Amino acid sequence: MKNTDSNEKKDEIKYIKPLTTGRIEALSDGIFAIVMTLLVLEIKIPELHGDHIDLISELVSRIPMLISFIISFILLGVYWIGHHNQYIFIHKTDRNFLWINIMFLMFVSLLPFSTALLGNYHTEKVPVICYGANLILIGIVLWYHWHYATKNNRLTTHDVDKVFIKKVHAKILIGPIIYLVAILLVFVNQNISLALFMITPIYFIFQGKIGK
Amino acid sequence: MKNTDSNEKKDEIKYIKPLTTGRIEALSDGIFAIVMTLLVLEIKIPELHGDHIDLISELVSRIPMLISFIISFILLGVYWIGHHNQYIFIHKTDRNFLWINIMFLMFVSLLPFSTALLGNYHTEKVPVICYGANLILIGIVLWYHWHYATKNNRLTTHDVDKVFIKKVHAKILIGPIIYLVAILLVFVNQNISLALFMITPIYFIFQGKIGK
Amino acid sequence: MKNTDSNEKKDEIKYIKPLTTGRIEALSDGIFAIVMTLLVLEIKIPELHGDHIDLISELVSRIPMLISFIISFILLGVYWIGHHNQYIFIHKTDRNFLWINIMFLMFVSLLPFSTALLGNYHTEKVPVICYGANLILIGIVLWYHWHYATKNNRLTTHDVDKVFIKKVHAKILIGPIIYLVAILLVFVNQNISLALFMITPIYFIFQGKIGK
Amino acid sequence: MKNTDSNEKKDEIKYIKPLTTGRIEALSDGIFAIVMTLLVLEIKIPELHGDHIDLISELVSRIPMLISFIISFILLGVYWIGHHNQYIFIHKTDRNFLWINIMFLMFVSLLPFSTALLGNYHTEKVPVICYGANLILIGIVLWYHWHYATKNNRLTTHDVDKVFIKKVHAKILIGPIIYLVAILLVFVNQNISLALFMITPIYFIFQGKIGK
Repeated sequence: MKNTDSNEKKDEIKYIKPLTTGRIEALSDGIFAIVMTLLVLEIKIPELHGDHIDLISELVSRIPMLISFIISFILLGVYWIGHHNQYIFIHKTDRNFLWINIMFLMFVSLLPFSTALLGNYHTEKVPVICYGANLILIGIVLWYHWHYATKNNRLTTHDVDKVFIKKVHAKILIGPIIYLVAILLVFVNQNISLALFMITPIYFIFQGKIGK
Repeated sequence: MKNTDSNEKKDEIKYIKPLTTGRIEALSDGIFAIVMTLLVLEIKIPELHGDHIDLISELVSRIPMLISFIISFILLGVYWIGHHNQYIFIHKTDRNFLWINIMFLMFVSLLPFSTALLGNYHTEKVPVICYGANLILIGIVLWYHWHYATKNNRLTTHDVDKVFIKKVHAKILIGPIIYLVAILLVFVNQNISLALFMITPIYFIFQGKIGK
Repeated sequence: MKNTDSNEKKDEIKYIKPLTTGRIEALSDGIFAIVMTLLVLEIKIPELHGDHIDLISELVSRIPMLISFIISFILLGVYWIGHHNQYIFIHKTDRNFLWINIMFLMFVSLLPFSTALLGNYHTEKVPVICYGANLILIGIVLWYHWHYATKNNRLTTHDVDKVFIKKVHAKILIGPIIYLVAILLVFVNQNISLALFMITPIYFIFQGKIGK
Repeated sequence: MKNTDSNEKKDEIKYIKPLTTGRIEALSDGIFAIVMTLLVLEIKIPELHGDHIDLISELVSRIPMLISFIISFILLGVYWIGHHNQYIFIHKTDRNFLWINIMFLMFVSLLPFSTALLGNYHTEKVPVICYGANLILIGIVLWYHWHYATKNNRLTTHDVDKVFIKKVHAKILIGPIIYLVAILLVFVNQNISLALFMITPIYFIFQGKIGK
């Protein structure tokens, strides 16, 4: 796109053409569907061969894992909705934007790892920090995704309202800010951090109703 | 949707627009395809290095796992058909409806876990209860999915016949009711519960022919 | 479809409408993509921590696993092409046909298990039989899929040439017949069976050129 | 396609028709989405039950695994973009082309294995060679994919500029050449090989800007 050679440039444009936003959305849908489903694979089946009392205690020990599964599933739902909603306004794409999307999907696909880490070691500080950091990275790339596309209407075909753009920016950044607070609070009392992780998805689900 | 600020509301409507039912169906198709395929991953390859007689007995010991795989695969087929069929009548979506769908998909993606649990510990009571509870949760959310969409034609574009709506309600609830009975019967004789799990998918496949 | 009550029947028709062949194809594409990719998960990374000579021998020991991966991947390609090609002629669907498809996909999704079994125990008779049986089941359901759809032009909109229908029948049945022979030969010399499994995909790839 | 019998040939053409490039792209999107997501499954959760210091050292030991995950994810992004871009010009398909695609996807789906091998044994020579070889195979098939389709405008509907075709050939072959060098350098100093693997994705991301 930025080559000085004009023919080269035209080739490049043709070469990039088919990667419409529709194609990006298809790859994203696929990756989101898989990540959401893979989360459950980290909840391992008990391997003991004892009686049913042991089985119950084994299952009870998986409750933190189940909770972290539910939290991550809902947050992935939030990010999936947020990512797609941006495409009402985004109608074009370029090479950089493709890579922003691939970065976004890369951090999304790391979530099963950090979810399982948190589910297995929720009493440790490091997994809380890793989980929060993963969510922050997803949120920041999603924010940059919106910033890059709307900056000077780069990838939007019609003029999007400036106030609306800013409102979306603020909405996206709420998540990373909460998770940053959660990470910092881990050094005070990590139960508060865990509570923040649990409250955030509930907030996202019901945010439309708070104004009521 | 329910903000008092009118501008806010308009933004919200625009913001939510692209999440058409088509997009929900795409995510659902992806998750169903993955869950159906992941089921088989829970049937582990024998790890012994002995002779072929041991291998046979190892494979025979996986028969309950295989049966629970088949049952879950068929039931996922039933739910997949049921979920899509609702979209003949549902043409709109809103924020709440998105979350009902994400809840539905969350319980669907838990099925590989409860299937493997049942397959490994079919002689225990707890796995039977967990498996039944998972199926009930899927069924109830699917029922609520239909209820929410058809209530006062909220998300349907044309008037759907009231009698038909009720018939669908009844059809959906048959599953959860059978599974509730299966759970209760576990305290009498859990072989009956297991038999109910096995008979139900056969019933669903052949239900169209019973009237013949 | 076969209820005597006429209203019931009309509801049923409406209720079944959206399950066009397009939707079946989408679910099939998803399941094929996942099964093809899951195959590789069964090739486990060596877990030793020794020097590079051991690593080489560990990797060499995975060659049968790799070969069975390649065979299954190609055969899945054959079945994927075969399944889709039928949909040039099939334009309608009904309840039974949906279930034939779900059965087809169920046997397809069992292939990672029987592939891993064969890859790990290729010197045993039972895995050869299981692998062959799995392939036969896929082939027979695919044959019935074609039979059900074309019988009296049940699901085809235009008249398909009778001779062509029969030719497709024959083409589909070649696979199951070869695999049946492979299973029977396991009691004579199972290396012949393994050779048959290896030759078949090569035959399928180059069959278009044999007539040349 | 090459049968002498003319009727047979016509049947064959009809039989092959529905496998439009769109369908190939759908299967490819699915497989890319799954392979990209499966990569992370190879980063195993620490299984110790010790204190948080051990957990940190366990996580630190996974950094090579994480780096190889990131490299493979980005390279898959490169290949995904490269594969799709070819379809701006490719509008037809034939039997051979289908199999070229299936070979391409087969080597792509082997990448989680060679990535995990490299991540676990980055100090060994063999995993570096395997990883490089896997990337070379993907690149060469992608090159042949372009060669087969554009040769005498076989599968392109309009005349594609000859110079442009050659430029794409060169672009695709850069990857395999770099990886071949990386494999050869493993016998000199394998840290250089690893550095090459790390630099290549960065080069691919920023290549559009180098001319600036």
